[in-house]
Amino acid sequence: MIKKIDGGVCAPKGFKAAGMHCGVRKNHSKKDIAMIFCEVPGTAAAVYTQNKVYGAPITVTRKNLSNGVAQAVICNSGNANTANLDGVEKAQLMSDLTAKALGIKSEDIIVASTGVIGQSLDMEPISYGISELPKLLSVNGGNDAAQAIMTTDTKVKEISLETEIGGKPVRFGAISKGSGMIHPNMATMLSFITTDVNISPEMLHKALVTVVNDTYNMISVDGDTSTNDMVSVIASGLSGNEKITSEGGDYDKVVEVLYEIGGFMAKMIAGDGEGATKLLTCKLYGAADIRSAKVIAKSVIASSLVKAAMFGADANCGRVLCAMGYSGEDFDPSGVTVWFESEAGSIKVCEQGCGLKFDEDIAKKVLLEKEIVIKIKMAEGDAEATAWGCDLTYDYVKINGDYRT
Amino acid sequence: MIKKIDGGVCAPKGFKAAGMHCGVRKNHSKKDIAMIFCEVPGTAAAVYTQNKVYGAPITVTRKNLSNGVAQAVICNSGNANTANLDGVEKAQLMSDLTAKALGIKSEDIIVASTGVIGQSLDMEPISYGISELPKLLSVNGGNDAAQAIMTTDTKVKEISLETEIGGKPVRFGAISKGSGMIHPNMATMLSFITTDVNISPEMLHKALVTVVNDTYNMISVDGDTSTNDMVSVIASGLSGNEKITSEGGDYDKVVEVLYEIGGFMAKMIAGDGEGATKLLTCKLYGAADIRSAKVIAKSVIASSLVKAAMFGADANCGRVLCAMGYSGEDFDPSGVTVWFESEAGSIKVCEQGCGLKFDEDIAKKVLLEKEIVIKIKMAEGDAEATAWGCDLTYDYVKINGDYRT
Repeated sequence: MIKKIDGGVCAPKGFKAAGMHCGVRKNHSKKDIAMIFCEVPGTAAAVYTQNKVYGAPITVTRKNLSNGVAQAVICNSGNANTANLDGVEKAQLMSDLTAKALGIKSEDIIVASTGVIGQSLDMEPISYGISELPKLLSVNGGNDAAQAIMTTDTKVKEISLETEIGGKPVRFGAISKGSGMIHPNMATMLSFITTDVNISPEMLHKALVTVVNDTYNMISVDGDTSTNDMVSVIASGLSGNEKITSEGGDYDKVVEVLYEIGGFMAKMIAGDGEGATKLLTCKLYGAADIRSAKVIAKSVIASSLVKAAMFGADANCGRVLCAMGYSGEDFDPSGVTVWFESEAGSIKVCEQGCGLKFDEDIAKKVLLEKEIVIKIKMAEGDAEATAWGCDLTYDYVKINGDYRT
Repeated sequence: MIKKIDGGVCAPKGFKAAGMHCGVRKNHSKKDIAMIFCEVPGTAAAVYTQNKVYGAPITVTRKNLSNGVAQAVICNSGNANTANLDGVEKAQLMSDLTAKALGIKSEDIIVASTGVIGQSLDMEPISYGISELPKLLSVNGGNDAAQAIMTTDTKVKEISLETEIGGKPVRFGAISKGSGMIHPNMATMLSFITTDVNISPEMLHKALVTVVNDTYNMISVDGDTSTNDMVSVIASGLSGNEKITSEGGDYDKVVEVLYEIGGFMAKMIAGDGEGATKLLTCKLYGAADIRSAKVIAKSVIASSLVKAAMFGADANCGRVLCAMGYSGEDFDPSGVTVWFESEAGSIKVCEQGCGLKFDEDIAKKVLLEKEIVIKIKMAEGDAEATAWGCDLTYDYVKINGDYRT
């Protein structure tokens, strides 16, 4: 049994967090630097963006995590520290300063940055923030940290869950930021997960990769894979369960909780995409295999035309079929059935690959809801996949027409 | 020497065209059916969408063109005749009716439809149109035909050119429709080319494929590859040049003119993308090979974030780098230089893969122009490519939020 608990990333034993305004951003009311601290060196794993142009923090974090150990996260928003000549140097300095401020090893720091690309990171506010944050660390600081990593996000994204593993209560927490430049590939946006489960680094990494591929990597806000995507997990091991070193049993329980977290965050991030008014979920059944199911579901959710139609509550099944067709996957169009569903009902709009006549009033009612499911049944096999996205709105254009200035 | 002439698709010897309102669309002032007629059976070639879900007209046209001969084009707008149970039957009927009305063979007809997907095509207006169009055919009808194939296009797209081949004046004409659901793959939107050059079907097909891959296929309006894309060419052979049956010499001249047409149409279509206020051209140099150059240039031009930044005249080089990075191509980011250019000037925004400080006022001035070039230099090799797109605007969302109803 998995139950929701309070505390966010500080819910697991051994974790404290803090978030504050240090000055990377001009707006004083917006927190812009976050710290998560584990009282012991924890087992750690992370997955990163597949973008060839990746942020300097990724370089440093990848190096620091190579031994599977981490004890703290430092993350600023407002500047991605990417595409800067001195980027890696500054990311390393963030790591060093954090280590010094916390009295731990620099190689045990997860460094992350999010914001504008290609502008030099001003280290003065960062240094100030890193020196102040340790004083603010608290078991109640998870929400502040979650706020501090937000960019154009409108909602704080945090969750904490508890389950029982090896007879011990085990807790997980996570915070994320999402919003724009979101079309993850192997890793996604920023999400920091904490847990007190006792697990080997290999098993932790395996669990993370499995879950990220089915959850975070199945989101698209705008088709743009960011340079700074990262999902990391630190496990303090303080829950006292017998160490998990192989698959099955307790490992499966960890995966199960991580799926809950990933699914929750995927929906939160997609539904809070830049300018979004609706969360779109594409549930695809009957594909030839899981890879194909994922590719097709993601193609539908990422289509600008599908997204704009959903914004306009227009039951345009042709755009769904079209997006399936250009996914690059082979399938028989005449085996495709499509429904639009929401709390207001379900309406079948396509059968045997052909548009159906349907009641436009009912369709409108279904599509005016805030959470829309595009359900697709194919006739290829038994594989299924779920992808999450959002509608394309005037506000997406507005937000991104002048983000930098 | 290639020179512009008047006449559109009727400029080459042997061609007449017409366009009229037949009633597929409710708006009586919008022409919705076009016919192009060649007085002799012509050599013909076409390339089609790679979308797995393709329109019924594609099925019929592909069959009709299998012998490399065509004598007429029939094309309606307002309904794509795609994803309909009776679609192929109706596309065949369009072909048969056109043949009968013109007194030619049904297998010599190019059939095309563009508009809403998944709604049954009403044959009553189509039949009426096909019976009336032959009476309207004229050497002055090219512009009417160009108007009749438009959907959300705001500008008529036609061109006619003359060159000399084998001592004879040879003419080419073309009309296109573009606007939305535009991210061609092997073929694009609708474009009908006419010429009076004397050429074998094999050489005509080869020339068309070559040119389409570098022009029409390098456009993206919204990343959505349509189900009904087609570029066709009919050559009457009436110019009297010695028949072109091999590469080099005269063949190269044909390719040269087709490049002019393709480049012109690519710019017209991209610049008139749904809701577009700016034409974006990505000129990429120094790639490892041409394939790679094309993939990267197209990734930049298709990025929602780049497009929105251009709409907002925001010189955001980070988004350009990001879009290059997720293109899937391998390259060294530190070898990348980026400029934004327009009639108002040129501004370097990135060097060695890093953002530069630049004069924001000059950048704004450059980006406030209607035609923007994103110039990219890489350090991989000598290959180059050009891709065309447009900005992402409020009007794109408006047009596509409620296209169908």
